[in-house]
Amino acid sequence: MDGRIDSLTNQKIKDTAALAMRRQRQKQGRFVAEGVRLGEMAAASGWPLCYALYTAELASTPRGAQLLATLRQNGCSCYETSQQAFAKASVTATPQGILIVMGQRQQTLADLPEQERPFYLVLDGLQDPGNVGTIIRTADAAGADAVLCLRGTADIYEDKTVRATMGSLFHLPVVNGLTPEDLQNFVTTRGLQLYATALDSTAQPHFACDFTRGTAVVLGNEGNGVSPTVLALAQKCYIPMYGAAESLNAATAAAIVTYEAVRQRQFA
Amino acid sequence: MDGRIDSLTNQKIKDTAALAMRRQRQKQGRFVAEGVRLGEMAAASGWPLCYALYTAELASTPRGAQLLATLRQNGCSCYETSQQAFAKASVTATPQGILIVMGQRQQTLADLPEQERPFYLVLDGLQDPGNVGTIIRTADAAGADAVLCLRGTADIYEDKTVRATMGSLFHLPVVNGLTPEDLQNFVTTRGLQLYATALDSTAQPHFACDFTRGTAVVLGNEGNGVSPTVLALAQKCYIPMYGAAESLNAATAAAIVTYEAVRQRQFA
Repeated sequence: MDGRIDSLTNQKIKDTAALAMRRQRQKQGRFVAEGVRLGEMAAASGWPLCYALYTAELASTPRGAQLLATLRQNGCSCYETSQQAFAKASVTATPQGILIVMGQRQQTLADLPEQERPFYLVLDGLQDPGNVGTIIRTADAAGADAVLCLRGTADIYEDKTVRATMGSLFHLPVVNGLTPEDLQNFVTTRGLQLYATALDSTAQPHFACDFTRGTAVVLGNEGNGVSPTVLALAQKCYIPMYGAAESLNAATAAAIVTYEAVRQRQFA
Repeated sequence: MDGRIDSLTNQKIKDTAALAMRRQRQKQGRFVAEGVRLGEMAAASGWPLCYALYTAELASTPRGAQLLATLRQNGCSCYETSQQAFAKASVTATPQGILIVMGQRQQTLADLPEQERPFYLVLDGLQDPGNVGTIIRTADAAGADAVLCLRGTADIYEDKTVRATMGSLFHLPVVNGLTPEDLQNFVTTRGLQLYATALDSTAQPHFACDFTRGTAVVLGNEGNGVSPTVLALAQKCYIPMYGAAESLNAATAAAIVTYEAVRQRQFA
């Protein structure tokens, strides 16, 4: 045990609870990975581990004890807290009794290695943290090389996003806070083709796109789609629809396009 | 106006609030479609409209007034309620001031028309209502012929499911409460091939499956996958994964498989 926290007004409890707010996450440069499975992935991730909070109940389970041992081996201070203090620090409705405060990684486009025919997903203003997290998970599974987030997209360090990535946030490069100009410069200097998903008479079915070249595909906001500025930089593609549905869920659309790239690259 | 309800103890308010519970939905044979956009789709669906509740604020908007007019034209009684009474009847955190109580449709396998090479998605114990709803929406968009739900799958008439379908529940046949025997008889008598998604050494990549024949594909529970009973009836297929992700979101997996069928049928 590195210490014990019972008081709801303890500074660590207050600092941790504050990480529910994006501004505080940015100010502290930190975020929270909560729960046993996500904690295990965080502990093994190589990312900066600032400190962990846990309950006695968690520590009494074999899996919890093992996780705490791993965290300590990795130099992470672990504080046992009362149930009440933990509940105040936690953002989940049904806390599992373990959360890890981690340091954010600021990854830039320049950090992405030059590759022969990379595949990137670009998120333009997606608002739903669950969608953003699910897309990072899918991109990781599909062997995509990075997810690039334009300004106005939901924070990748929000609790719901982090949980929806199911640990893929720790594996796949995710670049944040980009402007359309950043994106344009990147695709130009790297020689990438840029596609944007759009319902438009000049768009072609995504099945007809050649995704075997170095490619970045932009997915838009759930309600409004890809912004006009970004649309103007890109070739347009659409996912064919046949029934009465007016649109697809954004994470669903990302998966369909990404796995068509997998098919063309690995199974064609 | 067909009547006004201010009392929180009004029987209609209580009956409507009770529809948040699955047992009550089954007992009443009803469910709730809440919100303006979903209400518009419900009004146009041809499904049984029992009654609607709305607030004065909703009725004062042009779009709300139009929706109420359409509902009344379709013979649906509309009751103006106080904000408090509406909030009690509603299941959403931020109510839009309109909800429609609708009759459930019990669709059976026998109701599904015989077709030359249909494509069905089968859900085996999926627990997340958002996943079930998103899959129904995707299946509709992809032109699938029905979604078949085995017992133990989340209720398609739960509020979160209904909302995630974005109206596709009203368009696509969804058959509920099936046993593995029902499924087996159906695929046998209709001459369908049955695939199940599984991580298994005998599985083949879904890209290598021939989805141009009459096909049903089973998707399993988020944590445990397809049940052994159903797995024993099916050929196994898997979605190739390349990164560090251990699995895909269930709705994501459904979309990837379904759109591979679209590609093979429409774009190969």
